[in-house]
Amino acid sequence: MRSDAKENYQHILVTAHAVISEQGADASMRDISRKAGVGLATLFRHFPTREALLEALLRSKLEELTRKADSFETIDSPNEALVSWLREAVIFVRVYSGAVTMMAAALSDPTSALHASCENLRSAGTRLLQRAQAKGSAEKYMTGSDLFALIGALGWLGDQDAFAPRSDYLLELIARGILSSQPE
Amino acid sequence: MRSDAKENYQHILVTAHAVISEQGADASMRDISRKAGVGLATLFRHFPTREALLEALLRSKLEELTRKADSFETIDSPNEALVSWLREAVIFVRVYSGAVTMMAAALSDPTSALHASCENLRSAGTRLLQRAQAKGSAEKYMTGSDLFALIGALGWLGDQDAFAPRSDYLLELIARGILSSQPE
Repeated sequence: MRSDAKENYQHILVTAHAVISEQGADASMRDISRKAGVGLATLFRHFPTREALLEALLRSKLEELTRKADSFETIDSPNEALVSWLREAVIFVRVYSGAVTMMAAALSDPTSALHASCENLRSAGTRLLQRAQAKGSAEKYMTGSDLFALIGALGWLGDQDAFAPRSDYLLELIARGILSSQPE
Repeated sequence: MRSDAKENYQHILVTAHAVISEQGADASMRDISRKAGVGLATLFRHFPTREALLEALLRSKLEELTRKADSFETIDSPNEALVSWLREAVIFVRVYSGAVTMMAAALSDPTSALHASCENLRSAGTRLLQRAQAKGSAEKYMTGSDLFALIGALGWLGDQDAFAPRSDYLLELIARGILSSQPE
């Protein structure tokens, strides 16, 4: 990709994320092209379908979340590192509702375009969990997949009108459950 | 209702619960009538629509769960009483997926046929929570509505193929989060 085309591509992804954060994952291509200040033709040249745009966006967000997990490994307290990343992951699944189901599917399907990104994310999250199990107080029988299950459950809570206002409180409560191991 | 009609009604409800536990909430009226050993005409005389049957069944299950909460108030340990009831409630929402969303709607709609049963259930659950807050170690800022939110999230987990096998473990982990208050 030429460097101006690459810039355009990144610019469209950033705009698409902003529009989807506001309107939800069914935001229209027309809205995205308008907010990005590019013509529909340009948008469709980069992303021939809505699905292609969503997939590229999800991949970019999954990679961002993986990089965050990697960088959180340097936080001194392994408990704090794990919970800080959990908060980031929950913000992500609240914007991209359905992302957890899609990730679970992509993980078990090596031909999925998102398979590698999901694998990397799972490994990065699992490393944070294992560090908190070894040196912090994370529940010792918990697995990386349990971590994703809880992220998904917290995403579901944030999607329910009746519960959404309490979802931050409930995240902290669940985090206490994760960190409830007694020192031996 | 005559007493044999009442028996028939109860018998149909018990059978419908068994069929729905096995097949899910979209089990057919034909299957239910066959398993109950009554004709379709009899089934429809008691329950003119599928919705009427489901509503009666849900009301009866909500009342059962309310009675359980009441009886659990006599368990010595208020922590154990709360968590035992949480387990019962999660079993209920796993069978009746969508029950939590429906209950949240019924709670905010006084004209709903399930409003009173939902109110009673919420009160009974809230009493168990408040007892565990006063005399046990339940998180002190938690509300009865948070309890329902967590029941709903655990029901969601049990509905996801990828996470269902771990849902009992995750229930206990969340229970530890609920019971994480330090004595003052």
